[in-house]
Amino acid sequence: MTNYEKYKKLSEKVSAISFAMRHINWDAETEAPPSSLQGRGLTMRTLTTMMQEIVRSEEYVNTIKDLHKEMDSLDDFQKREVEEEYKGIQVREYVPEKLSIEMSSITNEAVAKWTEAREKKDFSIFKPYLEKLIAYKKEYSKCLENKFGYETDYDCHMDIFERGAKLADYDALFAVVKKDLVPFIKKVLDKNVKYNDSFLDMKFEKEKQKEFAEYLISVLPYDYDNGVMKESAHPFTWGTSSDDVRFTVRYLEDLPFSSILAAAHEMGHAIHFQGVDKKYSRTAISQVPSMVIGESQSRFYENHIGLNKVFWKKHYPKLQETFERQLKGVSLDDFYKVLNKVEPSFIRVEADELTYPIHVLIRYEIEKEIFFNNISVDELPALWNSKIEEYLGIVPKDDSEGILQDIHWSFGAFGYFPTYAMGSALSAQIENKMKEVMDIDKCIETDDYDTINNWLKENIHKFGGFKLPNDVIKDALGEEFNPKYYIDYLIKKYTKVLLED
Amino acid sequence: MTNYEKYKKLSEKVSAISFAMRHINWDAETEAPPSSLQGRGLTMRTLTTMMQEIVRSEEYVNTIKDLHKEMDSLDDFQKREVEEEYKGIQVREYVPEKLSIEMSSITNEAVAKWTEAREKKDFSIFKPYLEKLIAYKKEYSKCLENKFGYETDYDCHMDIFERGAKLADYDALFAVVKKDLVPFIKKVLDKNVKYNDSFLDMKFEKEKQKEFAEYLISVLPYDYDNGVMKESAHPFTWGTSSDDVRFTVRYLEDLPFSSILAAAHEMGHAIHFQGVDKKYSRTAISQVPSMVIGESQSRFYENHIGLNKVFWKKHYPKLQETFERQLKGVSLDDFYKVLNKVEPSFIRVEADELTYPIHVLIRYEIEKEIFFNNISVDELPALWNSKIEEYLGIVPKDDSEGILQDIHWSFGAFGYFPTYAMGSALSAQIENKMKEVMDIDKCIETDDYDTINNWLKENIHKFGGFKLPNDVIKDALGEEFNPKYYIDYLIKKYTKVLLED
Repeated sequence: MTNYEKYKKLSEKVSAISFAMRHINWDAETEAPPSSLQGRGLTMRTLTTMMQEIVRSEEYVNTIKDLHKEMDSLDDFQKREVEEEYKGIQVREYVPEKLSIEMSSITNEAVAKWTEAREKKDFSIFKPYLEKLIAYKKEYSKCLENKFGYETDYDCHMDIFERGAKLADYDALFAVVKKDLVPFIKKVLDKNVKYNDSFLDMKFEKEKQKEFAEYLISVLPYDYDNGVMKESAHPFTWGTSSDDVRFTVRYLEDLPFSSILAAAHEMGHAIHFQGVDKKYSRTAISQVPSMVIGESQSRFYENHIGLNKVFWKKHYPKLQETFERQLKGVSLDDFYKVLNKVEPSFIRVEADELTYPIHVLIRYEIEKEIFFNNISVDELPALWNSKIEEYLGIVPKDDSEGILQDIHWSFGAFGYFPTYAMGSALSAQIENKMKEVMDIDKCIETDDYDTINNWLKENIHKFGGFKLPNDVIKDALGEEFNPKYYIDYLIKKYTKVLLED
Repeated sequence: MTNYEKYKKLSEKVSAISFAMRHINWDAETEAPPSSLQGRGLTMRTLTTMMQEIVRSEEYVNTIKDLHKEMDSLDDFQKREVEEEYKGIQVREYVPEKLSIEMSSITNEAVAKWTEAREKKDFSIFKPYLEKLIAYKKEYSKCLENKFGYETDYDCHMDIFERGAKLADYDALFAVVKKDLVPFIKKVLDKNVKYNDSFLDMKFEKEKQKEFAEYLISVLPYDYDNGVMKESAHPFTWGTSSDDVRFTVRYLEDLPFSSILAAAHEMGHAIHFQGVDKKYSRTAISQVPSMVIGESQSRFYENHIGLNKVFWKKHYPKLQETFERQLKGVSLDDFYKVLNKVEPSFIRVEADELTYPIHVLIRYEIEKEIFFNNISVDELPALWNSKIEEYLGIVPKDDSEGILQDIHWSFGAFGYFPTYAMGSALSAQIENKMKEVMDIDKCIETDDYDTINNWLKENIHKFGGFKLPNDVIKDALGEEFNPKYYIDYLIKKYTKVLLED
């Protein structure tokens, strides 16, 4: 047996355990009864141990190390697999197993404490855990400094969610968000736009929302034969390989746009995953290690299609037919303006397209305070509140609307938030590039999603993790990431929709 | 670490893999897209290998063997665990791994060939595989003869589905089925009972069938908080432990009784599993190794409750309300007679309560021909047809209605069928025993399922695999299995419902 064959044999087991854990999670998020919690917890812990035993075994480690020495004899596909595996081995070598176990155990506790703190609107419950998490994360990055060319500790955390993330790109993005978007939003808000939104006072029946979500599946290029749509408390996309990619939606009777935009968003993720070349299935390079590229695809379908006027010119009649009681007599123009309503708000996941990046800006600036300036955790709630007041003119009534609102930090995910804004920004740059070779509005008008999605598939989706994120972007766009397309897009769009009225 | 602690540590992994495989199967049967087939197949194969590697490892085998020697120092619970594990080890030692692998590979092929043969109504496609399966099964029992006190090869096969199955019990059951039931059925059929069943010509909407199934959940003592009800092509019950027991139903618009009785049947299984003491969860004795006891519980809820006149006196109004269009003007008496309609038919799973055991009798007699008389596979289709003609007076128009109708043989399950009839028979004996201490009809009339189910839980469910099947039966009933209760019950019931009219 060659080393590569030996590796493939061992990785079959890792892949099978990962497949199993994904299935158990899918079940947990979508239908498992609450009583199943304990049995699932024990099982997941055992499966994690089994996976760790394999990837930390001498046989596995040596096989990868040997392969890494033989790189020249491997083809490009194999090289990328070995690169990924080798990086995993290095991280496991540099970060003591004890630290990983402690981090994972504190994370479990911290998530529970965060949940309790948010419910009780009491930051002090979560505070000691946040302090420990930050200390562990700093220790973690200390283990890896000088190892992978990180310029700062924060780079090391960003790298987990966005391979090769460059601080300069993020700084450039948030600089223009602050410089150009913040004043533009003020201008929009000062105009006191009138929205004819009384139809939102009515309930939008769950069953009908589901019917419309199914209609969206029939319109967008999500392959329903290779997937499932289901309900869950928080919408998400799930998959084991491009053969089986599913997503969930939730239906809130008071917020009809929520399920429509969530369906478009999750379908964007799902279409991306379905587009990965099948040859990467069940390998270490089945998915691009990039939250930014992932988010650029979900945001493309959510914002550039689902919030596009041309889309609604075509599909508003269907929505009106589905919600006859609620939308009778509501004109397309009025509907579209309400759909794109801009208002300052506290909750990131419910924010409109224009104020959304401000929510991320706040988190980015706070994370930088934590990792570059060692700010004390005590100061965070007030810092949060002062920032949202500065940028959006509102003050949280308690910490559940502020510092406690997102789950991410409670599971140690620092460096994650900025990818959300970067993904939205990238989707605008991608759209701009696509316009060089197609008339996107024309495609939407004629339900020609093949033209749109073939471009995305050929230039982005199909590579899975074969190409690294920065290469995908450069090759697809012919240039590096540039935030100007995003700012231009937002200002142009919202000037037209809300200011030129 | 004691040997017992070592064993528990190792068995955690076996239990985790088994939990994972159950989840992957549940997903496959209830919602996975067809495209997921290949990835799932590869994963399941790897997980099976991983489990085999553990239970065949020197460490595992020696630990169990050591424990088996230390039996005296173990408590009763531990003893039963070790007994089960030791038996597993013995079987794996006596049956060469090569034979197991070959059997499993021929089974995979045979199921596909059986499916094809049944679709094409062509036994010759399946015949060579059935021959090979029988040969393998004979070789398998040869490996085990003189090992566990089996009196015949067939006992060895029966033992897989019913631990400690005694041929004499089955022979006794089928002797009275043949002697008493076959002529009684002739008598019923000769009477040419008139059924006012024109309402069955209407479609019964799926959504409403589901609504009624949900109503049944609210009536019967199935704990919906610890479970899930879903749809699948074939109804089944599923669980990982008493904390998480689910079942499926299918809704056929032409066969409204099918979903009602399937729901009651599967809930019977599920209530049984939910009643197992939680201390047996994730151990080798989590479930009683007995298809008969399992089937006695599903049949109890299906036949002795779901086909009981008292039950329908109480719940027919709800059914009428649900299916107003179809059941308006249909009297309870007419409905109840149609629900219990007796007619000769080809398909076992759709057979009525009275002719059902005849379908099993045919299979039992054929299996005995195979294992005791070495009958040639060529002769099986004709033998089948002659038997069903003899017992029910009908002749299959092709083999899909005859020898090819059940999947069981294609996965090597010989000795399985007789447990179906035995389970039905046992449910009548259990009901008879329960009547000594409660008025079952009165309980049903007053929705007092606690009294009914507490008896079943205390005497049958709670033991899981801690007690062996024959002990469960003897302790619960104060006597051994006796088929007379079943025959008496059937003759009395159907005389009253159909002959005394």
